[in-house]
Amino acid sequence: MNLLKEKIKSDGIVINEHVLKVDSFLNHQVDTKLMDFIGKEFANYFKDKQITKVVTIESSGIAPAYATAFALNVPFVIFKKQSSAILDTETTIQTPVHSFTKNTDYILTASKKYLTEADNILIIDDFLANGQAAMGAYRILKEAGASVAGIGIVIEKSFQDGRKKLESLGLDIYSLAKISKISSEGIEFLD
Amino acid sequence: MNLLKEKIKSDGIVINEHVLKVDSFLNHQVDTKLMDFIGKEFANYFKDKQITKVVTIESSGIAPAYATAFALNVPFVIFKKQSSAILDTETTIQTPVHSFTKNTDYILTASKKYLTEADNILIIDDFLANGQAAMGAYRILKEAGASVAGIGIVIEKSFQDGRKKLESLGLDIYSLAKISKISSEGIEFLD
Repeated sequence: MNLLKEKIKSDGIVINEHVLKVDSFLNHQVDTKLMDFIGKEFANYFKDKQITKVVTIESSGIAPAYATAFALNVPFVIFKKQSSAILDTETTIQTPVHSFTKNTDYILTASKKYLTEADNILIIDDFLANGQAAMGAYRILKEAGASVAGIGIVIEKSFQDGRKKLESLGLDIYSLAKISKISSEGIEFLD
Repeated sequence: MNLLKEKIKSDGIVINEHVLKVDSFLNHQVDTKLMDFIGKEFANYFKDKQITKVVTIESSGIAPAYATAFALNVPFVIFKKQSSAILDTETTIQTPVHSFTKNTDYILTASKKYLTEADNILIIDDFLANGQAAMGAYRILKEAGASVAGIGIVIEKSFQDGRKKLESLGLDIYSLAKISKISSEGIEFLD
């Protein structure tokens, strides 16, 4: 078992069968040693893919994206969550995203300036559940004409259908911890 | 001149005499090598202060906070910006903050769980202008009973009064780039 799975087992808090709280090391308080391990794991898996940039979504994706981009020696780009659309389509790409987890909608927003046709992008995010955020990032990258080399996920809720949706786009998804079940008896991992 | 000031000179974009855009290396696209330099600078300045944790405010503070906390070998805690107050004062500390730069209000929010009386905190943020965000973080840390060892700022707008307010609290503020003037002719630094 890797460092991350051990940490989830020891410090993750089960809220209900869909929600696992990892506030003590991933979302609110961040364990920098663990994050460094996470970044190196992603960098190692995608090392032969000629990644030019890492892309993530604010704000829980920023720490793992930083760690990964630093290990790959490339910059990273933060896609912002806006509450409303911007009219400036010349410099900005936007796409609406629905979060099933939080039951909220936001407009995922990126500046065109930092995404080109020459870019080969690795998307990094903290969680994969229904895949809406990752699909939104993918739409923006496609509109910018960039290539998407793959997706790195810290914690995948494998009992939800996000992976299936992303795989149907032909994407290479690497999840460090795949959770098959969350229950009052504990957390179960795939493989 | 340090790496950061060189980058501000070469890649910063002057919007008006109050606003400098650093989207290409600090806020939207992040230069990981520069961020590593920033983290090491803060860590070196505060290395004898027995820092137990770094605290920052989402989302532009996360990258420099990560780099600093990693260099100091401590965790970091992300204070969240919420649009409304939470009733749960048993586990959460909140304080209202007004952003003069964006002309918005938010409720700065932290979990009590990760702030104790034994903590000696270093606050890290990307910008210091009117000091409202840093003052908010300070109020939360005081309410939690934690000590505040100092504040590390990536870019200080020294022509605004944030530093003065924080100094009046007796805080040690270390800013990597102190800007005295932003104009169409360029950016001027103090010292």
